[in-house]
Order: sequence, then structure tokens, then C-alpha cells
Amino acid sequence: MRNRDFPPRKPGKPQHGGRPQRSGARRPGGRALLGERRHAADGPAILYGWHTVKAALENPARRIRRLYATENAARRLADDGVALAVTPELVRPDVIAHRLGPDAVHQGLLAEADPLPSPPLDELSPAGIVLVLDQITDPHNVGAILRTAAGFAVAAIVTTARHSPEATGVLAKSASGALEYVPIVTVQNLARALGELKERGYLLVGLDSTGDADLGEVALTAPLALVLGAEGKGLRQLTRATCDHVARLDLPGRIKSLNVSNAAALALYVASKQLA
Amino acid sequence: MRNRDFPPRKPGKPQHGGRPQRSGARRPGGRALLGERRHAADGPAILYGWHTVKAALENPARRIRRLYATENAARRLADDGVALAVTPELVRPDVIAHRLGPDAVHQGLLAEADPLPSPPLDELSPAGIVLVLDQITDPHNVGAILRTAAGFAVAAIVTTARHSPEATGVLAKSASGALEYVPIVTVQNLARALGELKERGYLLVGLDSTGDADLGEVALTAPLALVLGAEGKGLRQLTRATCDHVARLDLPGRIKSLNVSNAAALALYVASKQLA
Repeated sequence: MRNRDFPPRKPGKPQHGGRPQRSGARRPGGRALLGERRHAADGPAILYGWHTVKAALENPARRIRRLYATENAARRLADDGVALAVTPELVRPDVIAHRLGPDAVHQGLLAEADPLPSPPLDELSPAGIVLVLDQITDPHNVGAILRTAAGFAVAAIVTTARHSPEATGVLAKSASGALEYVPIVTVQNLARALGELKERGYLLVGLDSTGDADLGEVALTAPLALVLGAEGKGLRQLTRATCDHVARLDLPGRIKSLNVSNAAALALYVASKQLA
Repeated sequence: MRNRDFPPRKPGKPQHGGRPQRSGARRPGGRALLGERRHAADGPAILYGWHTVKAALENPARRIRRLYATENAARRLADDGVALAVTPELVRPDVIAHRLGPDAVHQGLLAEADPLPSPPLDELSPAGIVLVLDQITDPHNVGAILRTAAGFAVAAIVTTARHSPEATGVLAKSASGALEYVPIVTVQNLARALGELKERGYLLVGLDSTGDADLGEVALTAPLALVLGAEGKGLRQLTRATCDHVARLDLPGRIKSLNVSNAAALALYVASKQLA
């Protein structure tokens, strides 16, 4: 992940959604920042790659600050009839590559944009499943989950302000445009947010390989929130206790625990079929 | 991906399975190497992380050359009753971190091992789905696919010698031990391998968002091979033409194309349910 997240974070200026943190890392005294974090989105979201940038340009709610494009990419945007709110700065591909690092597949497009706002829980559409992420830290995984969530018309993703990657860089690229389609609700206290969902009538179903029943056997009802825990750690104790059910995904093979984005895809498929 | 693959590849000595290559990269004159590649596994497979190394140690077919462990990890292996074929070299965590780079979650274990042999197609178990990967290059994705394949008791993964990541490093870590459970058949010519599967009675079903029918609507029969194409490029023309069906995964949301490991998980779920 080195060289893929830029610009470097300014000391003392927390960015929207928090920085990916190593599993188990705790910053003593970091709590003082949390109250500000929701609003203090000083750094821009860095968006690169064709789908990611095109979707952002087409999202009226997304303010693009700067757009860098190769001539080819700019022509392709014009050919696709994508309206540009800012004049693109035409650059050579290596200028973008230099900023992103050698592994980023940027496809000639890089945008600096304002992060999207975190909507309040009570403004969520009652249609569609809500996906709750309990401290999933890997930006590739969270990006893939967002992309699949957009595939399943998920109403929103609820995630914690701490121990979650910010909605920029690798996450945005992995989401392949889904950042613009799936609202992300960032909360300070996940158990409290789950309680609020429960009050609003949501059925809360946690996913864990040690769950009581296969997800396909649980009687699911709408509105539904599916809760996914971090790889390795799984659901935190309080998260688990707040769920109405903890379900597993039965697998016939030797491995019983999947990559979290793969597990999210299966859970969304099973739940969508049952609710349809 | 920098700093995660080591040791540096020796010039002129191709490693098992080929190096991850950028989409579209072609090495003129590289073909001369291909005949050797299947056997010329000079470099060791680098295995790190708890599940990955533990599964390798427990696999009688895997020859471990060297094992580096922290004291804690060595004790944990002993507590779990894992027999060690080689004496571990006890090291501090930072020694392993230094070799793998700062982003690798090694959990105190690193092994250098011989790559596993590529079994011939005619030795595959007729039970279980075969998963065919058509030039999927991202080692995170291939690793997650392997892990999910082990979850679904897939009989084997068939992959190309060129344009596929080698079974080491990030791929092995993402596979979370599945390298030891799912045979990987590396072939020079994918269309020929598909033809061989077809002769053996396999139904060949390609997955593509432009497919003719939803996978759930296709009448699947055993033995079954599911064929996945690279992200962005999809199935190559000849691969597509060789398949009996090309199916899509219908999604209700705005994004119609998933991360390839997420698509693999859904396809395996749908196909396993139908064949059960």
C-alpha cells in the first residue's frame, strides 16, 4: 500500500474516515480527534482509474477540485459525453504514475475531490440491505465490498470512524465507481448505531464462521442489516451481542472462512434471494 | 506489491507460474522460456502468515527448505501439535518484516519452500468443480479465489503459465493456506486445456457480464468447469469460443461487474447449489 496513498497526511489534520490502521493498533489519546473527524475532511479524496473517476465526474454530489488526464483519457471522456465541471490538466501518463506509485493502474485519470458527506442513519432508504462493517481495515477489501454492494443495490454501508480506511486511493480504485453509488455512514460508536437501526425496525444479522445457523436457514426480514467483522478478529463482542442473529456461511470444503469481501458477496446473494 | 515479493528474481531463471505481469504486457521472444517454465522452479515459494505457513507445514507433499519463526509463533506451532520437518530459525519479528516489507502481516512465520508440482489434467478428481482462470494477474485476487475455491471443495484451478502470478508471496498469503488444498494445473495453452476438459466430459461455462443467460438459468451438469476472465479484459476470444455457455451473474444494482474473486465466489455458490 505504500506509494498508493497520497498526498501525505498532514500532521494533526485527521482525514475523513480515518487512516487504515494495523490490526490491534490503538492510539492512546487519539479519542480527542474523533469529535472533529466527521467534519474535518481537510485532505482531498484521491480518485484514479477510469470507472472511479468517470463515476465521480457523473455524480452531481461530488465536487471535483482538480482533474488530471492524459490526452487519450480526456478524449475518451469527451467521446462518452461526460461533462467536466473543471478543466482537465492534460498530462503525460508518467506524471500521474509518479504521484500514485508504480503499481497503481490509473488509466490516464486522476482527480482530487471533496470527500462525500456521511449521511445520518435516519435518512437511509428503507429499501435495500444495509451492510455494516465492524473495523474492516484493508482498503482493497473495503473497496471490493463497496463494488459488490453497488451490484446488490445496498442502501448504505455503515462503518466506524476509527479502524476503517478512508474513502480514497486504493479503496476508491477497488470500488470501481461504487463510492458514488453507495452512501457511507461513518459512525463513532458502532453498537449505538446498531441500536438505532434496531429501533428503526432493522433485523441485525452478524456473519461469523462460528455462527449459530447457516445464513440460508435464518428467517430474514426487511429492513435488514448484515454485519461483517474484520478478518482474523471477527465481530467484536459488543457488536455480536447487539445482533439479533449471528449466522455462518456453510462451506463444503476444507476452508471455512473466506476473504471478507467474498463472504460479503455470498451473504448479499443469499439475503437478496431470500428477501426477493 | 513492491517489497512483498522476494527474493528478487534471478535474471534468466523463470520461476514457477510466472511473474505477475501488467495487463497487456507482452514479452517478445519470451516464448522460448515457456517450455522450461513448468519444471524450472528455481526460486523457492515464499510463504508467510499463520494459516499459510501452518497449512504448508501440515502438507506432506510440501517440502520446506527453511523456516523462520518468532519465539511466540514457534511456541504456538508446538501448542497446536504441528510437526516441523525442519528446525525453525528463531528470529525477532523485525527480521521477517525486513525481508517481506512493512505491509506484510507475517504473524511471526516465514517459510521458504519448494513450489508444489502442477498435476496433469487427466489426474484431476472427477468430483468437484474445476475453476479455470484466463490470465487473472492480480495476486490478491488469485489468492482470494484459491481460498474460496478451497471453501467450495473445488477439484483444481487451471491457470496459464504466462500472465498469471506465481504461487508465492502475496498470493499465498491471500490464499490463507488454500495453496495446500487446491491443486493448481499450470498450462501453456488454455484453449487446448479447455478442449481436453471437454473431451473428458466437462461442461465448460464461461463467466462474463455480457453472457447470454444468468448462471442460475443455465442447466449445469457435472463434471463442470467454470471459466473466469481477467478484470477489464474479460474472457479472451478463443477462450470464450471454446466454452459451451457464457453466462452472466445478474445483479440488481448499478454496478454489473464485480471484483473477479467476488464473482468467483458467487459463481461457485450458484453452481454448487445447482449440482448438489
